[in-house]
Amino acid sequence: MDLEPRSATPASSALARERALELLSRGKRFVLSGHQRPDGDCLGAQAALASLLLDQGREVWIYNPDLPEKRYAYLGEKVQQRAFTGGDLPLHDVSVLLDFSELTRTGDLAPVLAKHPSKKLVVDHHIHHGAPWWDECYVDVTASATGLLVRRIARELGWKLDRSAAQGVFTSLVTDTGWFKYSNTDAETLSVAAEMIALGVEPSSIFDKLYQQRTRHHPAYLARLLARTEYLADGRLAVVDQPLAEKLDPDLVDSDELLDILRSVASVEVVLYLREIPSGACKLSARSKTDYDVNALARRFGGGGHRKASGATIPGTLGDVRPQLVTAALEGFGASAPTPR
Amino acid sequence: MDLEPRSATPASSALARERALELLSRGKRFVLSGHQRPDGDCLGAQAALASLLLDQGREVWIYNPDLPEKRYAYLGEKVQQRAFTGGDLPLHDVSVLLDFSELTRTGDLAPVLAKHPSKKLVVDHHIHHGAPWWDECYVDVTASATGLLVRRIARELGWKLDRSAAQGVFTSLVTDTGWFKYSNTDAETLSVAAEMIALGVEPSSIFDKLYQQRTRHHPAYLARLLARTEYLADGRLAVVDQPLAEKLDPDLVDSDELLDILRSVASVEVVLYLREIPSGACKLSARSKTDYDVNALARRFGGGGHRKASGATIPGTLGDVRPQLVTAALEGFGASAPTPR
Repeated sequence: MDLEPRSATPASSALARERALELLSRGKRFVLSGHQRPDGDCLGAQAALASLLLDQGREVWIYNPDLPEKRYAYLGEKVQQRAFTGGDLPLHDVSVLLDFSELTRTGDLAPVLAKHPSKKLVVDHHIHHGAPWWDECYVDVTASATGLLVRRIARELGWKLDRSAAQGVFTSLVTDTGWFKYSNTDAETLSVAAEMIALGVEPSSIFDKLYQQRTRHHPAYLARLLARTEYLADGRLAVVDQPLAEKLDPDLVDSDELLDILRSVASVEVVLYLREIPSGACKLSARSKTDYDVNALARRFGGGGHRKASGATIPGTLGDVRPQLVTAALEGFGASAPTPR
Repeated sequence: MDLEPRSATPASSALARERALELLSRGKRFVLSGHQRPDGDCLGAQAALASLLLDQGREVWIYNPDLPEKRYAYLGEKVQQRAFTGGDLPLHDVSVLLDFSELTRTGDLAPVLAKHPSKKLVVDHHIHHGAPWWDECYVDVTASATGLLVRRIARELGWKLDRSAAQGVFTSLVTDTGWFKYSNTDAETLSVAAEMIALGVEPSSIFDKLYQQRTRHHPAYLARLLARTEYLADGRLAVVDQPLAEKLDPDLVDSDELLDILRSVASVEVVLYLREIPSGACKLSARSKTDYDVNALARRFGGGGHRKASGATIPGTLGDVRPQLVTAALEGFGASAPTPR
């Protein structure tokens, strides 16, 4: 299963990175934008870059298509995290897209950004599919997190990180490495994390904010989901589905936690968590422990991400979506579809 | 709740550390010993020190009172991890105790070590209660893991770590910091972890070996335990008990995972997991998210550990032990005992 197009951009050239740095150092008024339902890497990288720019005397606004989850509020202490609700953006000369490269993922912001005469800069560690559309880019798909790229940018520009910027970078790193567990955790990642601690970040405090704010009902809800685990392909594939009728408050369960538990089973190579949502669609979270490419799988259903962690929002009821998804997932193992139940 | 005796040893003096290093550099034949049911910090620190000593041309044996859990087998690749089964130890001039300081915790090894004329060295990061009994010690209770002390020792002696030693140090660090989540995760810890990656350690591979070898039954067992969660003291205390009759295979559940999930509830400050075992006793695992000292609690029941992570094996049935434990735990909040059910 390999759906990578030939035009994919793996990393900016040294020259392209130079031009990106020049844009950052010459710009005066910046709008930083993220993708829909911005995650900790996107928000952390934004907080870090916004803090750095502010310290350099620039004007900075953060506009995302959606408001962040409450647990990320600490990242908005220095520069407010705004949700775009229509109208015009503040006057600015540079728009920076962090942690993604497809303008459509900014939702209602997309047409506004597209028509705005600002220069467009992409800072990202995902593979871009299609032709480049931006003015400049600072991309490295081998970087564990976009926040790591912001750290590199600061070093190359000689900009110092304060504690607020350090919290942003640290949040990026832990979000995209599964708190330093995934195979993208390299020496640079841990070395930068150590540096962020020296700048005042307290890992246990960040962990508490991100992952220890659950309600008392959480263990029981998690137990109900775990009890729904099904194995296919001799236990290489684990599937948990969550019908709308289960009425599990989606905010109560952090899907990463559930996915990590399923991945802890020795035989399991791929985990699919498929949650029916009220809009008549299903949200897929897919994870791989091996070379199995869940990005390719998610792209078949209109989603994407990384080879080992991807997602998609798939139109249709659970009854419609699940069999298609399972069949496609089994093909990835070279296994045939299961007998209908 | 403060049961720390005045004689506790917080850290070796610089002079004491010098003497400890001298013992390591002059010794020829070493026996490294750990505590009963050796954990990842103990075994990782042993593997690292054994590897270093072997590279320096010394003879090294590792003897623990118990065989390690199977998941730690990769730590025995260079120097075999042996269980002491009686008889004599090999001739040696230095015995090193790693990750503990009370000789009784070596079980059947204790009298053999005590009568052996070898010099005794303690390398540890726990508080020692009582008078020092060893010849030399290299202790720092602020160190996140004993493996970190082995790293410091190597640096001070100018000994290079190979990949095998690096795996030992890395395993120590991740074991005792809850994979870099707990408040003992400092800049030195992450910086040394980064260094170990540069020496060839693959975090995701270590994670897989330690935490992703579970059976397919694991999610369902974990679900059953989570469903037993009870809250006391307005949700500040979470208790999970596991009666012998539940017949949950204890090896199927890593108590850290269960404890971490309970700790993720915002109101919870202390988690107690009490598991009835066949010998007519209960095993307690206690964790704290706050200043609440679970070491003091565990010591009241004959156990111990750290302020935030402690354990005990308490004689008696679950019916006997649980009410006593809960009463003692509630006293720590200044709360009164619950009404009997």
